[in-house]
Amino acid sequence: MFVTHLECPKCNRTYESEAAVQLCDCGSPLLVRYDLDKVKRAVTKADLIPRNADLWRYRELLPVRNRDNIVCLGEGMTPLLHLNQLGRKVHMPNLYMKDEGIIPTGTFKARGAAVGVSRAKELGIKVLAMPTNGNAGAAWAAYCAPAGIEAVIVMPKDAPPIPRGECAIAGASLYLVDGLISDAGKIVASAVAEHGWFDASTLKEPYRIEGKKTMGLEIAEQFGWRLPDVILYPTGGGVGIIGIYKALQELEAMGWIEGKLPRLVAVQSTGCAPIVSAWEKKESESAFWEGANTLAFGITVPKALGDFLVLDAIYQTDGCAVAVSDDDILRAEELLAACEGTFVCPEGAATLSAAMELARTGWIRPEEKVVLLNTGTGLKYPETVRVAPPVLEPGDTLPKS
Amino acid sequence: MFVTHLECPKCNRTYESEAAVQLCDCGSPLLVRYDLDKVKRAVTKADLIPRNADLWRYRELLPVRNRDNIVCLGEGMTPLLHLNQLGRKVHMPNLYMKDEGIIPTGTFKARGAAVGVSRAKELGIKVLAMPTNGNAGAAWAAYCAPAGIEAVIVMPKDAPPIPRGECAIAGASLYLVDGLISDAGKIVASAVAEHGWFDASTLKEPYRIEGKKTMGLEIAEQFGWRLPDVILYPTGGGVGIIGIYKALQELEAMGWIEGKLPRLVAVQSTGCAPIVSAWEKKESESAFWEGANTLAFGITVPKALGDFLVLDAIYQTDGCAVAVSDDDILRAEELLAACEGTFVCPEGAATLSAAMELARTGWIRPEEKVVLLNTGTGLKYPETVRVAPPVLEPGDTLPKS
Repeated sequence: MFVTHLECPKCNRTYESEAAVQLCDCGSPLLVRYDLDKVKRAVTKADLIPRNADLWRYRELLPVRNRDNIVCLGEGMTPLLHLNQLGRKVHMPNLYMKDEGIIPTGTFKARGAAVGVSRAKELGIKVLAMPTNGNAGAAWAAYCAPAGIEAVIVMPKDAPPIPRGECAIAGASLYLVDGLISDAGKIVASAVAEHGWFDASTLKEPYRIEGKKTMGLEIAEQFGWRLPDVILYPTGGGVGIIGIYKALQELEAMGWIEGKLPRLVAVQSTGCAPIVSAWEKKESESAFWEGANTLAFGITVPKALGDFLVLDAIYQTDGCAVAVSDDDILRAEELLAACEGTFVCPEGAATLSAAMELARTGWIRPEEKVVLLNTGTGLKYPETVRVAPPVLEPGDTLPKS
Repeated sequence: MFVTHLECPKCNRTYESEAAVQLCDCGSPLLVRYDLDKVKRAVTKADLIPRNADLWRYRELLPVRNRDNIVCLGEGMTPLLHLNQLGRKVHMPNLYMKDEGIIPTGTFKARGAAVGVSRAKELGIKVLAMPTNGNAGAAWAAYCAPAGIEAVIVMPKDAPPIPRGECAIAGASLYLVDGLISDAGKIVASAVAEHGWFDASTLKEPYRIEGKKTMGLEIAEQFGWRLPDVILYPTGGGVGIIGIYKALQELEAMGWIEGKLPRLVAVQSTGCAPIVSAWEKKESESAFWEGANTLAFGITVPKALGDFLVLDAIYQTDGCAVAVSDDDILRAEELLAACEGTFVCPEGAATLSAAMELARTGWIRPEEKVVLLNTGTGLKYPETVRVAPPVLEPGDTLPKS
């Protein structure tokens, strides 16, 4: 393993990485640091080619010491689709989608869970707890099962229902709360303090980011190490955008990529847009968003612990932040299915809506290479499609289409 | 392209492959034949290594002439998981699962659809129609969208609901029927005759098998071209088992694999077991199963057009056919989730149930390498998990676990 230590991006304090550390004493999330020169000597781009098509192909840049601790359900190396039909239609011929619906548990949360749980197992964690809008809880519950770790999951009662079943069948201890993810977070924090559990809340342990950063590594490899111009990411807790930015910085430090980094775009819903609001005011942190409400439930995060890291990633890459309406999200979901056959989650659809808006304003130029990050499959959101097909009797006939 | 012709496995009549042919004049499904010597000279096992992790890596063994006709959503090279925990528990240490839940549309039907639709596009088809228990319809609807082909889909009204939304959002013409898939099939057959549509019903066109056979190609490659001893497959229409057997025969003819082929096991539900019944009587065809009823809806096929090919694959490989109960299926689904973190569909769970039964009787020996074919994700069957978690108020506390 090439991890050297944990580092606070706010106060620069460092921590030893072999203990089960949570936040920095200053309250900031911690980042995992590697000896990148040593990684560079240990592995080449060509070494990756024959490796399995999962995220562990980047094991030198991941924080697990002993391979026996890896819990792998086949996560990673999700398809990077060139959206030919849709791209022509919306005048972005170089429009791509990274489809994180094609992954265990159906969402990109599997990446954070695979790496986070594997590392938790390695560190000897027996019980972990987390608040969730559904999909992260489902993913951590799934990976905890083979790891022999008990997962305690608390999610809003109004969250989409399918992840409840996923948590339950994987054997997690599941609770609902009549409130938002921030309410679930407070319940988890007090239980963690009382019972001594490991807190697996977003960014309260350092390893989930490492899993999410593999999206950035894959985008780089799948484009032949020549980066796209823009990456749009639906932003709730923001771990993905933080992770992608971290991945690109590591690849840059290793000399595996060069030139300007892609402009990173945080996409939110107009019903919960704390990052957009902060970005518009050029602030370095966000304010708690009151009355959060959007059908893109996965990005209903009123105040993210890592907001300052998200905003930094945007500022450093000349990116931006955009909010889109629920109506536009549903239209984008339909457009993707009708043109490309991909059934995406509302959060993923939001990135298309934002890209179309940015193309209209000229912020995205027509020839630019643009990547939408679809964070999950629409199969987990069947309620977003309304359908009432005609019911026939045996022997009936069909009209000519 | 290396296709030479289409061939009837029943009467051996051959057909030219560049026309849109359906069944043989004798009523049998047709199989695609290749110049395997030429394939062998054109590609080596090593050539595959740097190719994309999708089923088109085997393009020399697939029936699409012009790459521009390929509709790819990233399907194929699904994970082959070693079920360590579960294998120890059920005394099959070499138990594996090929997880076809990690694929576009969430089921293995994506393979048949990707190849079938790509070829239909190449042959100039404008409208196709099919009966379905849900997942095949959803997959064909999805692939037809970017191909510019209109899909007319008829499914039983009692089929699980999620695929309805998938069909609708992809723009298919969707109908329900108050009956079984066999009733839907009759409606489609009469519409095809009346309107001149292409009939994409199971095995009524030759290319779906070619998509499904890639499961066999992948199993061979993922095991390093050394085959497992047993493959268990949940059998409705049986295209997958026919396809896997065809793949293994082609690889054998090319000299890419040697030794005894895996014993192929057709797994059905006790509520609909025509293949099991025929196999028990050593018959070469099955009889229509009256009153079919099982929660494993995808394998509710009272009489499969390719039954004789399924039975042949079983007999030729010294395989067998096993029926399992709905209760055992639900128990197996829970066992897989609790031990391995994988949330599988009931059809996939049935294969675990069957493997455990065959291990109990000694038909599977403890040291044998056994592959369960999970045909889809449990996310499409949320109703199979019952869950009623406690609901907390903000500020509540959690009990110690």
